[in-house]
Amino acid sequence: MTELTNRHWVLSRTPDGPLSPDVFAWGEAPVAPPGPGQVLVRNRMLSIDPAQRAWMKGRTYREQVMPGDVMHAFGLGEVVASQSPGFVAGDLVEGMLGWQDYAVAPAGELTKRDSSQSLDHLIGVLSITGLTAYHGLFDVAQVRAGDTVLVSAAAGAVGTVAGQIAKIAGCRVVGVAGGEEKCRWLVEALGYDAAVDYKAGDLRRQIRAACPDGVDVYFDNVGGEVLDAALLSMNQRGRIACCGAVSGYDDAAPPKGSPMIPGLLISKRISMSGFIVLDYLAGREIAERRLAGWIAEGRLKPVVDVDDGLESAPNALIKLLAGRNRGKAAVRIG
Amino acid sequence: MTELTNRHWVLSRTPDGPLSPDVFAWGEAPVAPPGPGQVLVRNRMLSIDPAQRAWMKGRTYREQVMPGDVMHAFGLGEVVASQSPGFVAGDLVEGMLGWQDYAVAPAGELTKRDSSQSLDHLIGVLSITGLTAYHGLFDVAQVRAGDTVLVSAAAGAVGTVAGQIAKIAGCRVVGVAGGEEKCRWLVEALGYDAAVDYKAGDLRRQIRAACPDGVDVYFDNVGGEVLDAALLSMNQRGRIACCGAVSGYDDAAPPKGSPMIPGLLISKRISMSGFIVLDYLAGREIAERRLAGWIAEGRLKPVVDVDDGLESAPNALIKLLAGRNRGKAAVRIG
Repeated sequence: MTELTNRHWVLSRTPDGPLSPDVFAWGEAPVAPPGPGQVLVRNRMLSIDPAQRAWMKGRTYREQVMPGDVMHAFGLGEVVASQSPGFVAGDLVEGMLGWQDYAVAPAGELTKRDSSQSLDHLIGVLSITGLTAYHGLFDVAQVRAGDTVLVSAAAGAVGTVAGQIAKIAGCRVVGVAGGEEKCRWLVEALGYDAAVDYKAGDLRRQIRAACPDGVDVYFDNVGGEVLDAALLSMNQRGRIACCGAVSGYDDAAPPKGSPMIPGLLISKRISMSGFIVLDYLAGREIAERRLAGWIAEGRLKPVVDVDDGLESAPNALIKLLAGRNRGKAAVRIG
Repeated sequence: MTELTNRHWVLSRTPDGPLSPDVFAWGEAPVAPPGPGQVLVRNRMLSIDPAQRAWMKGRTYREQVMPGDVMHAFGLGEVVASQSPGFVAGDLVEGMLGWQDYAVAPAGELTKRDSSQSLDHLIGVLSITGLTAYHGLFDVAQVRAGDTVLVSAAAGAVGTVAGQIAKIAGCRVVGVAGGEEKCRWLVEALGYDAAVDYKAGDLRRQIRAACPDGVDVYFDNVGGEVLDAALLSMNQRGRIACCGAVSGYDDAAPPKGSPMIPGLLISKRISMSGFIVLDYLAGREIAERRLAGWIAEGRLKPVVDVDDGLESAPNALIKLLAGRNRGKAAVRIG
């Protein structure tokens, strides 16, 4: 094997407020060959997620990204060399590949993917993003046809999928997004029944107006004041799937918390359930087949927002945290 | 029927801070005879509940108690006269009887009780209080043998039952209560495995020490800072049954809310479910039979704190809200 160079982004310090590019340091190093049981992967597409910001703050459902670490990221890549019988050169795989050109990973942490699907679909709708929307709606929130479903960060990666599949499930779907243009796009391009612009103020009144029959399911990607406003419109026995709390990830100050919890949960018999999609991967095959079917039928539109080149990774994440993206954010390499 | 006089307590104004006796006005009026479909009840035992304070603040799961209303209260009484085929004079009944000597109620709002049971049991363990503990633990929180169960307001009406039946179900049970004496009593008299004194400070550290294997189920009667501290000790996939938020009922200021919601719900996959026992009354017979069985076997000790005379009702509620009671608070009349 000729000597390969691995370009990478390392976290240079733990950020304590809005992310800036100097939190990451660019570096290059020779690629180490895979050891026994390991696989060397050439990264092709890296996922850019709000959760990556949370990983820098402390231990979440996974270990903290510490200064000196290559920035963690889920991604897709091609096997270059394998010391495991489960993989051969040329296999398309996904896993925690990181912000770098090459990853060396234990075979057990990689999953083979179907290379006949496009990388744009495999990085989002047909992977963690789509499965998060799917299991959050069906297994956690248990949506039923006829429900009014409110989705926050509705123009984001998970939101664009959650809103569309709630429509497929026969629900009335209302999205919360930032800016009039995004809101119009949700309705016109993605088929949302209505959209609420959180930048336009008086969120409570807006949500109440957009959901005249109340909210049965709130798919919460943001927490904070949108959660607060949503709680007031929840119907009796409403279900809240807590998928993310992006409103707090990029702040130095701790979030304030909702004064309506637990009081309103009790008087309205509301269930609020946090979930991590990794707990649902046993059902992945069935969920992915349904998602792929809806895409093939033209009922589910994958929305991707791809930047080119590993160099663009920090800015792609900063842009995402500022809400300047639509759909699944990713970085394409090579 | 001779003319009967109905003594009663009327809410004189909507309180906006800690309850004081002048919020209620004593009055007397002749008793009206029951109309068609109605039943006249001589009240015998009135329930004193933290929720009564919440009812004065605004609409909850039931209508607000408004100035001029006879104070609402659940209670037990004896039928004096009936204009309904379902009831005859002498029947023991329960229902929303109010802080008064006599209640006239539609027959459909009363439930006949077994007069061979003592009023002390029927007002608490064998009614709403006991059913709240039972359904909250088994149906909402789904406790399983081996779980560590944390109960707040553990020395209160619902708490004393919840803790004891969690022990019967094979759980390790830890109570949160105010004061060293109450805490000792929980362990020595009620069989709690450990107790945490919220007045002794550093609740987080105390809960962590009392629950070295973490908390699987938190039965929350209080909200506020106890909820906050409990969240930090919750185990993965922990369940929180939100039964009450008494910490906020008697305050003028709105509660602060937990900054750990929804973030910690997500990373720990926690479910938090508010419930109202009224939703579970279809299963009442089975639940009551089990509760009565445990009492008969000496495994469940009903704890009651009864004041005598209708006159004592306001102070009984004030005492309860100040945490100066143990077990089920009630007022005995006549």
